Amino acid sequence: MAEHLYLQVAERIEQLIEKEVIKIGSKLPSVRTLSKENGISISTAFQAYYHLENKGLIEPRPKSGYYVKFSSKHLPAIPKTCQPVKKATEVSASEMIIEVFHNMTSPMIARFSVAAPPVSLLPAAKLNKSMIQAIRQSANSGLDYEQLPGNENLRKQIARQSINWGGVLSEDDIIITSGCMDALTLCLSATTQPGDVIALESPAYCGAFQLAESLGLKVLEIPTDPESGVDIAYLDKAIPKFKIKACLFVPNFNNPLGALMPEQNKKALVEIINKYNIALIEDDIYGDLYFGKQRPSNLKCYDTEGNILLCNSFSKSIAPGYRVGWTAPGKYHEKVLRLKLNHSIATATLPQAAIGHFLEKGRYEHHLRNMRKALHTQCLRYQQAVLEYFPADTKMSRPQGGYVFWTEVNPKVNTFELYEKALKKKISIAPGRIFSLQDRYLNCLRLSHGQPFTKEIDDSLRILGKLVHQMS
Amino acid sequence: MAEHLYLQVAERIEQLIEKEVIKIGSKLPSVRTLSKENGISISTAFQAYYHLENKGLIEPRPKSGYYVKFSSKHLPAIPKTCQPVKKATEVSASEMIIEVFHNMTSPMIARFSVAAPPVSLLPAAKLNKSMIQAIRQSANSGLDYEQLPGNENLRKQIARQSINWGGVLSEDDIIITSGCMDALTLCLSATTQPGDVIALESPAYCGAFQLAESLGLKVLEIPTDPESGVDIAYLDKAIPKFKIKACLFVPNFNNPLGALMPEQNKKALVEIINKYNIALIEDDIYGDLYFGKQRPSNLKCYDTEGNILLCNSFSKSIAPGYRVGWTAPGKYHEKVLRLKLNHSIATATLPQAAIGHFLEKGRYEHHLRNMRKALHTQCLRYQQAVLEYFPADTKMSRPQGGYVFWTEVNPKVNTFELYEKALKKKISIAPGRIFSLQDRYLNCLRLSHGQPFTKEIDDSLRILGKLVHQMS
Repeated sequence: MAEHLYLQVAERIEQLIEKEVIKIGSKLPSVRTLSKENGISISTAFQAYYHLENKGLIEPRPKSGYYVKFSSKHLPAIPKTCQPVKKATEVSASEMIIEVFHNMTSPMIARFSVAAPPVSLLPAAKLNKSMIQAIRQSANSGLDYEQLPGNENLRKQIARQSINWGGVLSEDDIIITSGCMDALTLCLSATTQPGDVIALESPAYCGAFQLAESLGLKVLEIPTDPESGVDIAYLDKAIPKFKIKACLFVPNFNNPLGALMPEQNKKALVEIINKYNIALIEDDIYGDLYFGKQRPSNLKCYDTEGNILLCNSFSKSIAPGYRVGWTAPGKYHEKVLRLKLNHSIATATLPQAAIGHFLEKGRYEHHLRNMRKALHTQCLRYQQAVLEYFPADTKMSRPQGGYVFWTEVNPKVNTFELYEKALKKKISIAPGRIFSLQDRYLNCLRLSHGQPFTKEIDDSLRILGKLVHQMS
Repeated sequence: MAEHLYLQVAERIEQLIEKEVIKIGSKLPSVRTLSKENGISISTAFQAYYHLENKGLIEPRPKSGYYVKFSSKHLPAIPKTCQPVKKATEVSASEMIIEVFHNMTSPMIARFSVAAPPVSLLPAAKLNKSMIQAIRQSANSGLDYEQLPGNENLRKQIARQSINWGGVLSEDDIIITSGCMDALTLCLSATTQPGDVIALESPAYCGAFQLAESLGLKVLEIPTDPESGVDIAYLDKAIPKFKIKACLFVPNFNNPLGALMPEQNKKALVEIINKYNIALIEDDIYGDLYFGKQRPSNLKCYDTEGNILLCNSFSKSIAPGYRVGWTAPGKYHEKVLRLKLNHSIATATLPQAAIGHFLEKGRYEHHLRNMRKALHTQCLRYQQAVLEYFPADTKMSRPQGGYVFWTEVNPKVNTFELYEKALKKKISIAPGRIFSLQDRYLNCLRLSHGQPFTKEIDDSLRILGKLVHQMS
């Protein structure tokens, strides 16, 4: 689908700013000139500048015109690749994770700790309509059990969507689950036995460690680069050495780094998995939320042997509360289906039907376009604020999609102390320590840019920066 | 709440029939006499007789009046107490269970294999209203995550309901789950480690064996009486001998027997559990569906130590497809909550809110009254038909509530063969073999009386009886 004209113009200017063809402080062409040179209307030219202003890249100066304000070339260094301790670790319940989780529901001025969409970005009215339609269209008002694999229309729509990332799924490949965590739980249960070793990224989503613990699994943390993701050469050696039975990775905009695995790495990773004939659970929950031109591909595209168990959900894009996720578990399909039957019989009927209807009506694509733009803009504004308020030695990852970025501050700063100090000011962050089982990332934090960038957010980031200054 | 007048009169007559004060074949008083003697209107007297006729207890004869047709004293013998093999068994996937489950979704004339409510008995219209209200009343249209323990109003309503069975739950004791199976999964995971031995009834719900298998547990089957449930003297000796870590029992109208554990046994059972300080998971999913005057109590009433993990759901009474269940897991509360967080984060927001609203408006009590009457009537009609069509040596359990009864036929009859023969005639039954891990119950079957008693049901039971005759 063709992008709006103003976006095309804005993107060309953005690229010129990125490449420093137009430097920070330079004056941009007037609105009138922009209009003439590009053969667009005055109002479209205004829209293009307004869009760039909103992203924090340019600023209007009274009676003078627009000036370049920011280029991401000026963002601080990217944190170094994470080198975890090289042994498999029995997961033990971290009091810190529980502490952080408990504070997730207490009232906050700024919640930088949650990698989830704010309700203001969610399509409430249209989804309500789809829910009402689902009640009307469902046999028996949705009171009956849904069939075991899940709502047929929803599975068809998901299969249709797979074209966007180069997949060729059919509805028969897909099993609906109660959110992505349920999909991960079923897939890990289907591919491992208690006592087995699994590989996670380092740093990785703390919920993955908790899940591994509750299934009695040991975890090996694989070094992960903030730009390119998992170190696949390291993994290649680690699989036989540590007898890894399954990997659980997030190749697209992983949490907490926001890393995006390059195409050739994805291909090579699947080859390694096939060489050792083990399972890889691919969590693609952020894949639809890319900032660039194109949706990134999935490992599943390269899956010739059925070793890739793709998991996803609509919790980060439409409705966390609907608890609708899915998996395409390759050759573990029957096993996952059996586990689903044993543990929960079926997924709730109406939420699935409503999301199926929402997708069928093309509402998902439309909604995602707006959401992606909003998230990209927010990410830029947040990073600009951190650059402004945090000490000069601060490093930041450069997410190309998703909800979070990873920040490394001066080694003197213990971010769990920072977490506690910020909490007193009703600001929540996710300290780096909770993203590993090793005693690591003590001077790192994960910041979520999910909430729209408001004055409260700006103030809160300033307060956070001041705290880091004091502690550095 | 006072029962209707016609029901009071009908129940008195029913008791006289039960006690054979009025024998089968005897003429009942005329409607006019009944009206006069009981000081009720003619139409109320008609209603009373109509109610008894509907239950299959009396019949009108043209130009003569009403005659006694049936007394449950004339039901065949009850199957003998089940004596399982005395060793713990590693659960292995039974092909037979998969086979039976797969056929559950194929079209049938009579589905005697499913212990679930027919949609015709469910409160679709009123529940739809509650769902619409839930969307309107929920903060953010239910798009947001529900809090970890579940919808507060629903938990309050469930706590309020606990008075009905003599419980004293508060909303803080309760955790909402995605149906009862999810509650059982969480509770078993919280109380056991892979390799542990758990105790189940024998025969027991086949899903419990499947769940145990997927959690890597060994199962000891405890002898269970079709009238009084689990043999607690046997259990008392088995716990130390087999190092049982947890029990999973259904004291009220268990599946497949329909047994109701007497009050003194319940009390004694909890004492045994406390003596050994192990966990007991109490599945009370049929408790609200009693045929008698009063709701049976729960083991949880006697729980002084927090060893009883009560599990329940609304799947058998309101809406299987909503997947809303709950647990009050006693001293395992924190552990179950952690597991819920790790495996699924939260339960779907809107279905919980809708059921909370449904309960709050008093719709649940009203609905249950009608449902219980219908199920009791259906059970009587089904059992009368089996008595009529099956061979004379057939034995049947006497459920006092729930959806199923247990039938034992001539030892020559292999009920898996019967299952296969019936399937060809579009009739599904649950063969006894799937309710044990031992090679047992080969001449038993479970019949569900959940579907309203129609001509098709009557015909199908006649066909089933003919098959049993041929195979005996």
